[in-house]
Amino acid sequence: MRIMDTAERLIESTRELLWERGYVGTSPKAILERAGAGQGSMYHHFKGKPDLALAAVRRTVAEMRAEVDALLSAPGTARRRIAAYLGRERDALRGCPVGRLTMDPDIVASDELRAPVDELFDWLRHRLAEVVREGRARGELPATADPEQLAAAVAATVQGGYVLARAAGSAEPFDRAVEGILALLAAAGAA
Amino acid sequence: MRIMDTAERLIESTRELLWERGYVGTSPKAILERAGAGQGSMYHHFKGKPDLALAAVRRTVAEMRAEVDALLSAPGTARRRIAAYLGRERDALRGCPVGRLTMDPDIVASDELRAPVDELFDWLRHRLAEVVREGRARGELPATADPEQLAAAVAATVQGGYVLARAAGSAEPFDRAVEGILALLAAAGAA
Repeated sequence: MRIMDTAERLIESTRELLWERGYVGTSPKAILERAGAGQGSMYHHFKGKPDLALAAVRRTVAEMRAEVDALLSAPGTARRRIAAYLGRERDALRGCPVGRLTMDPDIVASDELRAPVDELFDWLRHRLAEVVREGRARGELPATADPEQLAAAVAATVQGGYVLARAAGSAEPFDRAVEGILALLAAAGAA
Repeated sequence: MRIMDTAERLIESTRELLWERGYVGTSPKAILERAGAGQGSMYHHFKGKPDLALAAVRRTVAEMRAEVDALLSAPGTARRRIAAYLGRERDALRGCPVGRLTMDPDIVASDELRAPVDELFDWLRHRLAEVVREGRARGELPATADPEQLAAAVAATVQGGYVLARAAGSAEPFDRAVEGILALLAAAGAA
């Protein structure tokens, strides 16, 4: 096992806490405790909580983008690739580590902290729209629907599926929402 | 103008703060300041922050359920009523006052505080599924898709639309997601 250096431990602890408790709910003290680091080491490596959170969010965004891009760039029909994206979640009750940040008032109020979140969802919608265009060109998806709109609906279904799952305390509404949009894409594609 | 009594002011201030900052981000002190009330009056009327938050969430849930039920019970086709529900939002950047609570770790961790949130979304999905069934019976919506799944996809599109809008700092992705699911419902219904 590689022993992580302190800056690394601080970033990884912050990523976990942001996912579990959000930015407002994460104190510098909680980060230091989880990282097993002292206050001095935090301020040695980072300017403070916003700076550390920015490093943590950027890393989470980069990982997610690489994972989702691999699914959307795989061989297969557009519908199959969209289905792979929709089916990638294994633990809907945890929610999306990036999407949940949009409900955090201090993230949304900060242009700097919101920027990586904005970039991820902007990239996601454009990448999904490209896949939809490929599907339209091959007659798999309806030519009547705007690709940017379908892409937004697919991305929203995933993010809203987390909301429904966490409200219910069960992954079931997430799975149903995903099945619902896939059924609509299939029915519309057959039209 | 009717002057609200203290308990009423405390509930209304808590509703506003829960919407703006969430449960974890709302301190008893912030509630008292906004309500112009003293600590004693809060503990006279409520057992504490969880008790006051429960009263606030229950009221928000009751209002939203009545509003949405009115739209879904209006005359017109199933698609028109679903479109009215999808189009009811006027300020997507504020997010949903109930949905945002699902990203609040202390709400989700408390069976008592999560209960009204769960009830609202459970009711919403069932009510939307009834409308979908009516639409299927009248040939407006595809018989191939499961009503509970379509209902979950519609509800998820709205909740996820807020996430995309708040990430972008613009209502545009919310509007696109709504247009996207409506286009899919129309294309699938024509199949």
